[in-house]
Amino acid sequence: MIKPLKIAIAGLGTVGAGVVKLLAGNAELIAARCGRPVVITAVSARDRRKDRGVSLEGVDWYDDAATMAERADCDVVVELIGGADGMARRVVDAALARGRHVVTANKALLAHAGAELAAVAEGRGCVLAYEAAVAGGIPAIKVLREGLAGNRIQRVYGILNGTCNYILTQMRRTGRPFGDVLADAQRLGYAEADPSFDIDGVDAAHKLAILAALAFGTKADIAGVHVEGIRHIGATDIQFATELGYRIKLLGIARMTETGLEQRVHPCMVPLETPIAHVEDVFNAVVVEGDFVGRVVSEGRGAGAGPTASAVVADLMDISRGRASMTFAVPASRLVDAPAAPIDGHRGAYYIRLMVRDRPGVIADVTAALRDQKVSLESMIQRGRHPDAMVPVVLTTHETEEAAMRRALQRIEALDTVLEAPRLIRIEAL
Amino acid sequence: MIKPLKIAIAGLGTVGAGVVKLLAGNAELIAARCGRPVVITAVSARDRRKDRGVSLEGVDWYDDAATMAERADCDVVVELIGGADGMARRVVDAALARGRHVVTANKALLAHAGAELAAVAEGRGCVLAYEAAVAGGIPAIKVLREGLAGNRIQRVYGILNGTCNYILTQMRRTGRPFGDVLADAQRLGYAEADPSFDIDGVDAAHKLAILAALAFGTKADIAGVHVEGIRHIGATDIQFATELGYRIKLLGIARMTETGLEQRVHPCMVPLETPIAHVEDVFNAVVVEGDFVGRVVSEGRGAGAGPTASAVVADLMDISRGRASMTFAVPASRLVDAPAAPIDGHRGAYYIRLMVRDRPGVIADVTAALRDQKVSLESMIQRGRHPDAMVPVVLTTHETEEAAMRRALQRIEALDTVLEAPRLIRIEAL
Repeated sequence: MIKPLKIAIAGLGTVGAGVVKLLAGNAELIAARCGRPVVITAVSARDRRKDRGVSLEGVDWYDDAATMAERADCDVVVELIGGADGMARRVVDAALARGRHVVTANKALLAHAGAELAAVAEGRGCVLAYEAAVAGGIPAIKVLREGLAGNRIQRVYGILNGTCNYILTQMRRTGRPFGDVLADAQRLGYAEADPSFDIDGVDAAHKLAILAALAFGTKADIAGVHVEGIRHIGATDIQFATELGYRIKLLGIARMTETGLEQRVHPCMVPLETPIAHVEDVFNAVVVEGDFVGRVVSEGRGAGAGPTASAVVADLMDISRGRASMTFAVPASRLVDAPAAPIDGHRGAYYIRLMVRDRPGVIADVTAALRDQKVSLESMIQRGRHPDAMVPVVLTTHETEEAAMRRALQRIEALDTVLEAPRLIRIEAL
Repeated sequence: MIKPLKIAIAGLGTVGAGVVKLLAGNAELIAARCGRPVVITAVSARDRRKDRGVSLEGVDWYDDAATMAERADCDVVVELIGGADGMARRVVDAALARGRHVVTANKALLAHAGAELAAVAEGRGCVLAYEAAVAGGIPAIKVLREGLAGNRIQRVYGILNGTCNYILTQMRRTGRPFGDVLADAQRLGYAEADPSFDIDGVDAAHKLAILAALAFGTKADIAGVHVEGIRHIGATDIQFATELGYRIKLLGIARMTETGLEQRVHPCMVPLETPIAHVEDVFNAVVVEGDFVGRVVSEGRGAGAGPTASAVVADLMDISRGRASMTFAVPASRLVDAPAAPIDGHRGAYYIRLMVRDRPGVIADVTAALRDQKVSLESMIQRGRHPDAMVPVVLTTHETEEAAMRRALQRIEALDTVLEAPRLIRIEAL
């Protein structure tokens, strides 16, 4: 008699219900690939009476998820509540304390307390798996931790937030401004009522901190991520990007540098020739650069019930098969505290968009400010003539240091003829 | 005292030397991620004196690889000789007979004898790992077998041969004919002196048969793959493809249909909007479509010392960590013999290029032949007028059955005014 893998699910929102559906719909195939059935023995959610379109017959119900994590008859606790603390944290703590494996989709929790939880899991001989926490259905964690494990990782980056990618894609396709497209996305369910977590880059930062920890053997350091969102991207910027041969993407980028771990999330100008430029709509992509393998790109749906459930179930199947991995690829005791490389030291090319009064001498003042900071200009575009009206001027620079760029922009912003705060978008060499 | 993982390597060509370099160069990092060092204890190759740019000090040398597989002091035998039979087969047989794990990059062996070898490995409690056999550095096997394991796979397809993709990319960029670009590729080392294995689609067929077995739980069936290569793609076809909004790619495509397992390798017209259209040069890509996850695309280098070594070492690290998988995801005894779906039953749209004598009535004869087979025309292009000269005529059809298309083409080929065999390229809805 083969013993099933018994799981308890905390949280029955979109993802939780998706996991129940997947385990039911593909039960036979999963059992064949696992060597045994995966059975849900207990669940916990806020409202017992809510219709979730899934059958929970014969499954124990717990009103309190932490109690379930401690007491339910299960091998694995699946945490799908979310949030860096509160109930999600209590569930994971309770499960690990009881020596139960944990599968979670909780990026905030991993980004804030990853190293600490990894140490606890390791101490208890438990798996702490989190494929669903980064890039939804893309097996990005598995690719990085196992598939490319022989490589020294040189850089990891990606499109880690589907909401932002959808908005930027729609802005380009329709030419409409950010606010309108965001409102549409909210209507379609691609953006939350309070969209700040997505559009201000926080969600992408959590995911990047996890990828960086895994890639570089560091303790996840969310505080070390430089974060900018997409609120300030104008329809004008999208147009100029197209004209210059770029797409604007919100990227998360991590790299180990001489001054420390570089982690940044911000809009980027991405050359059209690079694969990630063609990742559109709600799709995510994760790019890993390794010293032997070169560049490996993984693309797929970064959110939604089906893709996220796919990732959760992959973790369950690994546990069922005994394919355990270290949480962050190496023993928790070996994870290091890397200093954060300051964004001021970043070197790269820049796109700058100014709104200026169309008047003789403006460009001379602007270029003088750049010259004084030794910022070398690559191109300048000013379309048409509209004497005394407000017009956009776009500059692109050669590689320069961020600190110099910022000093130049301070002086430019102080010019009488510069009517709005300059917009800066980093041009990425990918 | 932690025991190292001891490996013996059969074959020290490009890939074998790459594995030695990778294990040496990243030894510390690999040991940290494996929990123990990975140590080469024995090697075998044809010429002992050849300089491979790697140190083999202290490593046992065997002139006969099969003897090494049987006798060397090792846990894993790495087979990098290649070929469906002969020495490669003897090495794998000898290793498994001794209860040793096998890691191989040998696609021909897996495609021809995968199910049989899987059964032997399983019976001996050994791992038979072959990440390097498909798509080089892309962890395509891991993604399909583990990362997306919860999904019923609906289709798997990809650009599986870097030589062909390089040639097709160069033809498009330069407008030069196939033969010239092939000669260049040979000079650059991207194509073999005898290129038929690559350009006739045989290599891609091997890889597709492995992916299909894994995706659908079938016995690898190389004989069931419909194979066409890229020799007949003309510069004209490349130009028309661009004009029509397509890229021409050699794809391997597998799908389970009502009439059996569909496996086909042939040039395809791929819409520019699909991610795979932008996979260029020597890069490979594997696309998996699962019922819950949707579409997941993995892209990277499909060949070369570094990427292939990366895949071999990932397999070694999985073995070291005890992350064993079933060879084809399910027990070998459950792998089924699926009948091959005949290509005649394929339904899809087609691109047809004719070389005709420019004369009144030609198009009427051609379209009548199509009409009689109920093939519905989508577009027709005939550029310019050159009375009585040979000119290309390009037709695209709506979805139709391959058998009907072929009957129509037979009649078209028999027309006096059709001067060359019609060229058919399938248009893929991806």
